[in-house]
Amino acid sequence: MTVRTLPGFMELLPQEQIVMENMKSVIRHTYELFGFAPLDTPVLETAEVLLSKSGGDTEKQIYEFKKGDTDLAMRFDLTVPLAKYVALYNNDLTFPFKRYQIGKVYRGERPQKGRFREFYQCDIDIIDRDELNIVYDAEVLAVIYTIFKKLELPSFKIYLNNRKLLSGFLESLKIDDKTVEVLRLVDKIKKIPEEAFLGELADLGLPDELNKKLLTFIKIKGSNQQIISQLENLAVQNDNFKNGLEELKTVISQAHNLNISPENIQIDLSITRGLDYYTGTVYETFFDEYPEFGSVCSGGRYDNLSSVFMDKKFPGVGISIGLTRLFDQLRQNGLLKIEGPTPNKALIIVQSPEYQNLAIQLVGKLRQDDVSADIYLRDCKFKKKMEYANKIKVPYLVIIGEEEAKNGTYSLKDMIGGTQEQLAYDELLKRIK
Amino acid sequence: MTVRTLPGFMELLPQEQIVMENMKSVIRHTYELFGFAPLDTPVLETAEVLLSKSGGDTEKQIYEFKKGDTDLAMRFDLTVPLAKYVALYNNDLTFPFKRYQIGKVYRGERPQKGRFREFYQCDIDIIDRDELNIVYDAEVLAVIYTIFKKLELPSFKIYLNNRKLLSGFLESLKIDDKTVEVLRLVDKIKKIPEEAFLGELADLGLPDELNKKLLTFIKIKGSNQQIISQLENLAVQNDNFKNGLEELKTVISQAHNLNISPENIQIDLSITRGLDYYTGTVYETFFDEYPEFGSVCSGGRYDNLSSVFMDKKFPGVGISIGLTRLFDQLRQNGLLKIEGPTPNKALIIVQSPEYQNLAIQLVGKLRQDDVSADIYLRDCKFKKKMEYANKIKVPYLVIIGEEEAKNGTYSLKDMIGGTQEQLAYDELLKRIK
Repeated sequence: MTVRTLPGFMELLPQEQIVMENMKSVIRHTYELFGFAPLDTPVLETAEVLLSKSGGDTEKQIYEFKKGDTDLAMRFDLTVPLAKYVALYNNDLTFPFKRYQIGKVYRGERPQKGRFREFYQCDIDIIDRDELNIVYDAEVLAVIYTIFKKLELPSFKIYLNNRKLLSGFLESLKIDDKTVEVLRLVDKIKKIPEEAFLGELADLGLPDELNKKLLTFIKIKGSNQQIISQLENLAVQNDNFKNGLEELKTVISQAHNLNISPENIQIDLSITRGLDYYTGTVYETFFDEYPEFGSVCSGGRYDNLSSVFMDKKFPGVGISIGLTRLFDQLRQNGLLKIEGPTPNKALIIVQSPEYQNLAIQLVGKLRQDDVSADIYLRDCKFKKKMEYANKIKVPYLVIIGEEEAKNGTYSLKDMIGGTQEQLAYDELLKRIK
Repeated sequence: MTVRTLPGFMELLPQEQIVMENMKSVIRHTYELFGFAPLDTPVLETAEVLLSKSGGDTEKQIYEFKKGDTDLAMRFDLTVPLAKYVALYNNDLTFPFKRYQIGKVYRGERPQKGRFREFYQCDIDIIDRDELNIVYDAEVLAVIYTIFKKLELPSFKIYLNNRKLLSGFLESLKIDDKTVEVLRLVDKIKKIPEEAFLGELADLGLPDELNKKLLTFIKIKGSNQQIISQLENLAVQNDNFKNGLEELKTVISQAHNLNISPENIQIDLSITRGLDYYTGTVYETFFDEYPEFGSVCSGGRYDNLSSVFMDKKFPGVGISIGLTRLFDQLRQNGLLKIEGPTPNKALIIVQSPEYQNLAIQLVGKLRQDDVSADIYLRDCKFKKKMEYANKIKVPYLVIIGEEEAKNGTYSLKDMIGGTQEQLAYDELLKRIK
């Protein structure tokens, strides 16, 4: 038989998995710090629920199958399950409902470099009934900012925009019947030259004058304050545009209140999130020196979580970190701080088997004092034991032999600093902690 | 369309999910404290890998389907994926290899009370090449003991046995050709009366005298020391039996070295783990007052992780907590300490909207100081805000109004104790922490 892991499914060695788990733990902790409650929905749902509002691509990629009489499918994101959850349980939930979910999702696309069929999404959303305060759009920024800082990732920028600006602008030019086509084009602006962009605009049958206005609008650049001033100077007479501008100003000023460094957020009028269901603020996050990673964290504000599942209106704002892909890109670029394949802070070895019981008692005590520790139990040459300690890259080594047994002390070797000392238990504990 | 969650798939409200996540976090932390490294294998594997050594029941329950030309299946436990992992990566792993995995597994059995089709298993295993020290069988006990104590679960006992005792005993009686049938019967002994047990033994065609010896053996009771003495007194002349007895004695004495309370471990010669692949120590865990929960944590020692996937011999010892079922049973019996649907330690409310910016600055500061906090941003009557605070059961409420704004202080209300004080930030932080 062929023993193998399916292509497109990430499987890590322990030293890498430990880094991945640390990243997950930072994300989880930060989400909770910001008051998001955990949610855990099933990986399997009825195909009817999952495919309720999906387009053609999703349908092709989804893992769908029958068990008995039921059409089942594996979730391809965490948003549709959230919409289902709110539809089912909204009477039991307290609003605003802030939830996070860190879970695997599945897309059976053709495997290629950097693409995964099973990958983690780390989502937060804030949902309210009828209306949701705009301050939450800044809070979402603060969450992402805090996580990226804590993870000590390369320098990054969260780019933001408000969809109402472009749609209001198109309305003011009376070309809002072309909104979908223009959105699609704007999404491509970073990838194609300006002339090609203008050409494609012309292909939409719009007059040159309008196209140039549009290009000028999208290309507004500068600091956040400069962009806001330029937008104000446009004096666009359209409510949608004015709302969008007010919202953007509030998000920027509240981001300041929430202590986000100005150099980490940047208004970018070309960010649209394509044809997604967003209606207001939109976010994308890029590493300054690694633009080729693409957006590592994206999201936005939507007017209605799910009209497919229910009549009531639940507006929300949310963002998602594509953790598996981010991890893989960091790894490919040597940006992960890989340590040993062990979570242990200390390893205990004995000079000869007669001291094994002392070692077992010590490891029990260390663990009771919340120090991750282990014993090397193989009865082999001392040199072999040292080799093992070096191989697992444990920070502290405790050696027990004749002298230590006689004096009730322990020999502690700092594997990084190289020093070695004879210590009583309390001193040993203090040093390791 | 029918909006629903599939039957047999657990989906929790936030206040329950928080308890579940806390349990997972205690389990994860303890596993790491004992030096187990995290592992995360895919939920999907090739059907060939997953079904390589399964029997008929598993095959019926498995979620299996085709995508393109590939036969896929969802994992039904974490052991087969571990066997595959060790087969694929053993050259890159350091042995002894101690791994934990907390993940969902899938069994499409008929849904019934207390049975789940998607459920968490929390597994640890210690694997070595060729030989694995018996002390690890005690370490596994210490892990489970520590977790159950930390989770503050009802009083429990870990029952243990060594399979070599029964098989050696049967060999000494020269009826080891009936080992499978006898194991199957012994597994039932707690559920059927003694006479029925003897009747079924007689049906195997064994002479009365042997059957009585067998019953006497299985019914040996007493403290761990008493059982060991009685087993020694049997003076069975069989190597298998002698090895099993030595191993059992070592596990008990090392459990003592590892500070496990004697009242939480009990030798029970009727524990066999049925027809599982165990070859030495076996474990089951029961709550003293809730035997109807069944074993909430089971496992054992095996000679070879997987002969299906590789030629090399990898003995191991492992144990698994069936977390979803355990959680469900605790919940059904009112044994969970349910708190509010929020992870927040503090909620900030304002007397009127003009103080909102002060509130936003405060929440930012609290979160920077690692306090999970939130603001209530809806602009409504003060009474409504208080109702919300009560509903989410937050431990501390911070109120900002005219006086607080003027003095640069905060009004802190202890929602459990009921006291209210005016405090500067540093004092506030100290109090909440």
